[in-house]
Amino acid sequence: MFETAELGRTIAKAEFKRMAPNLRQELLELQDTLHKSKLFPVILVFAGVDGGGKGETVSLLNAWMDPRWLITRAYDGDGDGDWSRPEFWKYWRDLPPRGRIGMFLSAWYSRPMLDRVFERTDEATFVNQLERIVGFERALARDGALILKFWMHLSRDAQENRLKNLENDPLTAARVTERDWEHWRIYDRFIGAAEQLVSRTNRGIAPWTVVEGTDANYRAVTVSTILRDAIAHRLDDMESKGGASKNGPAAKKKSKGGKNKHRQAAAASAAAGNASAYQDAKSITVLSGLDMAQRLEKHRYKERLLDLQARLHRLHLSAKTKGVSSVLLFEGPDAAGKGGAIRRINEALDARNYQVHGFSAPTEEERAQHYLWRFWRRIPRAGHVTIFDRSWYGRVLVERVEGFATEDEWRRAYAEINDFEEQLNDASTVLVKYWIHITEDEQLARFKLREKTPYKRWKLTDEDWRNRDRWDDYEEAVNDMVQYTSTSAAPWTLVEGNDKRFARIRVLETYCQRLATVLGESQD
Amino acid sequence: MFETAELGRTIAKAEFKRMAPNLRQELLELQDTLHKSKLFPVILVFAGVDGGGKGETVSLLNAWMDPRWLITRAYDGDGDGDWSRPEFWKYWRDLPPRGRIGMFLSAWYSRPMLDRVFERTDEATFVNQLERIVGFERALARDGALILKFWMHLSRDAQENRLKNLENDPLTAARVTERDWEHWRIYDRFIGAAEQLVSRTNRGIAPWTVVEGTDANYRAVTVSTILRDAIAHRLDDMESKGGASKNGPAAKKKSKGGKNKHRQAAAASAAAGNASAYQDAKSITVLSGLDMAQRLEKHRYKERLLDLQARLHRLHLSAKTKGVSSVLLFEGPDAAGKGGAIRRINEALDARNYQVHGFSAPTEEERAQHYLWRFWRRIPRAGHVTIFDRSWYGRVLVERVEGFATEDEWRRAYAEINDFEEQLNDASTVLVKYWIHITEDEQLARFKLREKTPYKRWKLTDEDWRNRDRWDDYEEAVNDMVQYTSTSAAPWTLVEGNDKRFARIRVLETYCQRLATVLGESQD
Repeated sequence: MFETAELGRTIAKAEFKRMAPNLRQELLELQDTLHKSKLFPVILVFAGVDGGGKGETVSLLNAWMDPRWLITRAYDGDGDGDWSRPEFWKYWRDLPPRGRIGMFLSAWYSRPMLDRVFERTDEATFVNQLERIVGFERALARDGALILKFWMHLSRDAQENRLKNLENDPLTAARVTERDWEHWRIYDRFIGAAEQLVSRTNRGIAPWTVVEGTDANYRAVTVSTILRDAIAHRLDDMESKGGASKNGPAAKKKSKGGKNKHRQAAAASAAAGNASAYQDAKSITVLSGLDMAQRLEKHRYKERLLDLQARLHRLHLSAKTKGVSSVLLFEGPDAAGKGGAIRRINEALDARNYQVHGFSAPTEEERAQHYLWRFWRRIPRAGHVTIFDRSWYGRVLVERVEGFATEDEWRRAYAEINDFEEQLNDASTVLVKYWIHITEDEQLARFKLREKTPYKRWKLTDEDWRNRDRWDDYEEAVNDMVQYTSTSAAPWTLVEGNDKRFARIRVLETYCQRLATVLGESQD
Repeated sequence: MFETAELGRTIAKAEFKRMAPNLRQELLELQDTLHKSKLFPVILVFAGVDGGGKGETVSLLNAWMDPRWLITRAYDGDGDGDWSRPEFWKYWRDLPPRGRIGMFLSAWYSRPMLDRVFERTDEATFVNQLERIVGFERALARDGALILKFWMHLSRDAQENRLKNLENDPLTAARVTERDWEHWRIYDRFIGAAEQLVSRTNRGIAPWTVVEGTDANYRAVTVSTILRDAIAHRLDDMESKGGASKNGPAAKKKSKGGKNKHRQAAAASAAAGNASAYQDAKSITVLSGLDMAQRLEKHRYKERLLDLQARLHRLHLSAKTKGVSSVLLFEGPDAAGKGGAIRRINEALDARNYQVHGFSAPTEEERAQHYLWRFWRRIPRAGHVTIFDRSWYGRVLVERVEGFATEDEWRRAYAEINDFEEQLNDASTVLVKYWIHITEDEQLARFKLREKTPYKRWKLTDEDWRNRDRWDDYEEAVNDMVQYTSTSAAPWTLVEGNDKRFARIRVLETYCQRLATVLGESQD
């Protein structure tokens, strides 16, 4: 989940200075419109790793906007007379009214998180507390509140560096306490709980954005851009509906010309301010970090392949005996080599015990059901293996990029998918998710080869060519997919696929390792 | 919660015979329209007390409708090859496609319920399982499914009678097993878990109806009427939107004339079929059972009043010392005597430790917030007492009846209120909820007295007179309110208020008892 916030996204100081005045101006104007219209409240939550820049970002927004209409709340200790009342009393008390923006530091996320990290609560209680939060945010969102949540992330190393730098500077050394180091030492436990927290409370009506916290400029621009766009979007929506629902349907008035005026104003202003530095930073994705030059020699490949297939065969017999089933799914650009990788797995399995399902556009029967239905029904029974060549992730990939699913539909799909996979996990199914990646150039070369090879020509369609035009959109969708659905229980495996041999071995290795771990066998 | 299903609602055989043909015809026609339009799937869940008529109702609907387009599923044991797959696999597999109706007996509610009743799971795990169900139903509902859930209820005595009758009849004696009696013996535990199950999974998108299961005719008419109206309603909505959202906004077409044609057809047909027997049965509410003739002699009243106030005074000192706070709320018709009852409590308390808040229409500041905000902020701190003269229940009473809140708003308020009160309960706040009831005649007498008494005249407004026209609507709203928000942790106390003395003593007694229980003091 947090891979997407360890990419080294930065914005240079000079760029930031050029962008900042426009962003400030846009935020101020939107804040003013919001305040005068009193259409809805805005609730911002900042949480995350210590040192991820929660406080700095809130300070910056306070400096950039009109502080008279901002409410900022941090809850350190119980010094403000709220002891013995229900915990949420103080959050309710501090909610911004319509027209204002409230910024909350950790707030309702703090106690469940710390209680879980320090093992004062068990898993089920933690989940209950998160569900209470979902209920709270849902009640506010359905009443009209715009809720945005930012999870400020730092890698373990970045957090260590930050603490050391603070200690080495005489001016800041005193700020580092033993408690900070104690928190750093339990970083992995913290991240485990954070992953659950973010995925369970990430709803369309109150979404999390995981923000890379290392670079102050990048995180400032990220948060303020998302805030600006969300307010502009909502103002446009509500103005075109003729005001808050509180005013009743009678207040409806058409304003077709100005339907997207806030969004257009923000976009125009953004263009004037040369926001391309932000776009450049955003174009670094989890796929950018892959070393696509990796290759495997033919003789080494053959050796490894035989070894791994033999190993998989043994592991699979053991899994069959123990009733452990597997679900493998393959996603990736066209011609990435999914079919070839799948065949190398099949060769090691008993044909009676596995089934490959390929998925393209849904059939009429499938269209009459929920999009998850065609996948749910193909879940293997005990000891069996099901391989999905393309999968439920189509919802957040092709359906998102091609507009077959509405934004609301693909956004809520992350939570639905996490819930689905959690049930597979609860049933002790081994779930392995592969994204086999190739570069644009490599894809072009493969397409051309397909055109020339008679028995491969059928694989190439006009659609394949069209999809290439949306390469960047797909890359953004993959990055979001990894952000919201790669969890320790169901991680994504990103496979460098420019060399087919290398990719096939990676695929086999990964599956063998996962199976061996679940079966409690040695990682030979 | 289940008080509303122990009212003795029945429909006589002759009436039922007159109504049935029309209901069948309407259901068949709607089923046909649904099937041809393929607009949405219908998911019906039947759960409840053994013998409440789940199976019989499903059989009846199978007989009344076209079974080719019905899917009926009960899940007894794990004999259908689903072992080792995630439990929900079989529910997904069996979902009806758009255009069909699926009827599920207990299904996904069965295991969480039985595991909890037999204490195989703890409270937190139970809540988690219910949240998983909410997630499942939400995913289906947001995809367009119409979901209706029926909880078939029998009182403990009715269940016992039913088992005895079956045993006494040689033809049916064999059907009664030791397991049935075992279930009957843990009736109270079952009902406790059922209350949690229904209130936690009762959502606007998948609402529960608690059905009195004693009379077969009444429950058949109830279920089929609700089903008929819900399908007609949804068909009208979707047809006026130009079909399923799947068809995209481009498919929009106006059909103003026929906007409510299915509802109108159903209503016309219902009128022709003389459905008044159903209306008559429905007009029996939790308020019908009150013995409004109860009176208390003046000298007995004075004696009890002094006793109870002295006792409350002592209990309150103890509560203050222990930091136990109280929230008392009063609802009831105008002139029911809420103010007088409140004063009798205040007389026993230390003025520094209690606060009375009266609520009428929200102020401008309050309107800029969520409707619960003005109540949340007045929650007492430890050891204090807050008395709400009218309360958050306004949302499901006056705002519902007067149309100030949309149906969607007041329906979702039940879950929001339960969540709010659960948090009070978690913080060990004593919550006492009074509905002080008076008859229409008594109210009229009191209004006339107010008109004649100069110092009481200010209390009477035109609105008070107008509210009398909606007496029946209010009674229905009160019945629903008790059904969805009276839980063992936060029960409603219905007080017979025609005699003010009787009501005041009941109010004091109730509060004393609740306080004594929480403080662990004797019920002297």
